[in-house]
Amino acid sequence: MRLRVRFAETDQMGIAHHSAFVVWFEAGRVEWLRDRGMSYRTLEEEGVSLAVSELRVHYRRAVRFDDVLHLDTRMTDLRSRGCAFSYVLASEETGVVAARGQSLHVATDRGGRAIRIPGAWYERLRRAADDEAA
Amino acid sequence: MRLRVRFAETDQMGIAHHSAFVVWFEAGRVEWLRDRGMSYRTLEEEGVSLAVSELRVHYRRAVRFDDVLHLDTRMTDLRSRGCAFSYVLASEETGVVAARGQSLHVATDRGGRAIRIPGAWYERLRRAADDEAA
Amino acid sequence: MRLRVRFAETDQMGIAHHSAFVVWFEAGRVEWLRDRGMSYRTLEEEGVSLAVSELRVHYRRAVRFDDVLHLDTRMTDLRSRGCAFSYVLASEETGVVAARGQSLHVATDRGGRAIRIPGAWYERLRRAADDEAA
Amino acid sequence: MRLRVRFAETDQMGIAHHSAFVVWFEAGRVEWLRDRGMSYRTLEEEGVSLAVSELRVHYRRAVRFDDVLHLDTRMTDLRSRGCAFSYVLASEETGVVAARGQSLHVATDRGGRAIRIPGAWYERLRRAADDEAA
Repeated sequence: MRLRVRFAETDQMGIAHHSAFVVWFEAGRVEWLRDRGMSYRTLEEEGVSLAVSELRVHYRRAVRFDDVLHLDTRMTDLRSRGCAFSYVLASEETGVVAARGQSLHVATDRGGRAIRIPGAWYERLRRAADDEAA
Repeated sequence: MRLRVRFAETDQMGIAHHSAFVVWFEAGRVEWLRDRGMSYRTLEEEGVSLAVSELRVHYRRAVRFDDVLHLDTRMTDLRSRGCAFSYVLASEETGVVAARGQSLHVATDRGGRAIRIPGAWYERLRRAADDEAA
Repeated sequence: MRLRVRFAETDQMGIAHHSAFVVWFEAGRVEWLRDRGMSYRTLEEEGVSLAVSELRVHYRRAVRFDDVLHLDTRMTDLRSRGCAFSYVLASEETGVVAARGQSLHVATDRGGRAIRIPGAWYERLRRAADDEAA
Repeated sequence: MRLRVRFAETDQMGIAHHSAFVVWFEAGRVEWLRDRGMSYRTLEEEGVSLAVSELRVHYRRAVRFDDVLHLDTRMTDLRSRGCAFSYVLASEETGVVAARGQSLHVATDRGGRAIRIPGAWYERLRRAADDEAA
């Protein structure tokens, strides 16, 4: 996934604010699903969310307004009730890594209660995770 | 309403980003309602939103990280299907105006359809608007 | 300019928050400049900002998570000390207009003082504005 | 530190977006410094930033629009070139923990280069960290 740093994402240090990376990682998850034929929007419309239960970010290099970034997203774990993703964000031009991250997710219903990932979705995620590991 | 500019709200110009004011005005509306015994959260829980249909902001002075601001919010119009608010944002220390704004709102249901403001809410808003005009 | 609504840009009404449009319009200005051979990043690096002095947004239709939007940005005025842009945001799929906006800008130096747009930049903006009007 | 969840901080799941917590933690650091007689704004004006190098968040309970939260911030480590903070975010009403977090920071100059924390600042941070441990 390709991203361009928005002006609104900068802070007075002249770099992208560290909270922007969290938003980009989320966009990375959505694109990861789309690239594998799944729509997070549809999942949400069916009443299922992949709520973030844990997040880790290692910031390596600052990124600046208008920088073009490449975000590599992978599913690193899949269970009946949740999953995990990892992220590598790098400069598109230089390939230098700007940040790495991981997130854990639990499937929840509209009321925020933990649920099992519905069967059909789980199967599709399973195949995508297997393809990735292959 | 008293606000302190957050670091995340700054941009690389070293000032609060112009989109932050829009978020502050919204917080001002919520506090305006609370100060008059109404909860925007409850209104939303009852399925009614005051969706923004129009927004104007005049930026007069930049505000900086950690500045303490005073936001004066007023309801300037109330109709069966919507209302209007105006805002004056000023430095708490100097009183210098940083921005003025206006917003128009339409009442909507959960599906986003325009509706009449429910009677009991309309009456409360009416009294609050009248008190303000008095 | 093509945009996809991010999950983080939604609010509990289930639609993109009205402050997100303000961020998108800014991204539209940056791309408008880039499309005409100008870099807003370079302008900023030279110590010149186009600070927002006034902003208007008319919201027509809600947009939702994952919607793909088309943003049409135009420069509508250019003066020695500032400029104006207008925006039309529409669904890429249906062409239905979601919002229209206008912004006024004043050129400022790093200290936030109003300045004249530097000559070389003014000329480039002038040509771009003339091309657009033609 | 006391916080109220803003409407703009919610997402379409009807809860505060997970990136909002990152912004709140930052506000917590600023208030931690202020409570101990230090101004992060002044530190930045002197050309020193405490850039985030690592961030961890454990999300325990969703928080909702208009919830009042209590954020407890502590400095957990101080070195010549950086420091660490931890956070506990809880409902003010019930005391139930919504999230815990940790952040690591490196001191940087205006160019983003890692530096030693200036002596006078280090001493003040040292005393504050010692008081906290006592």
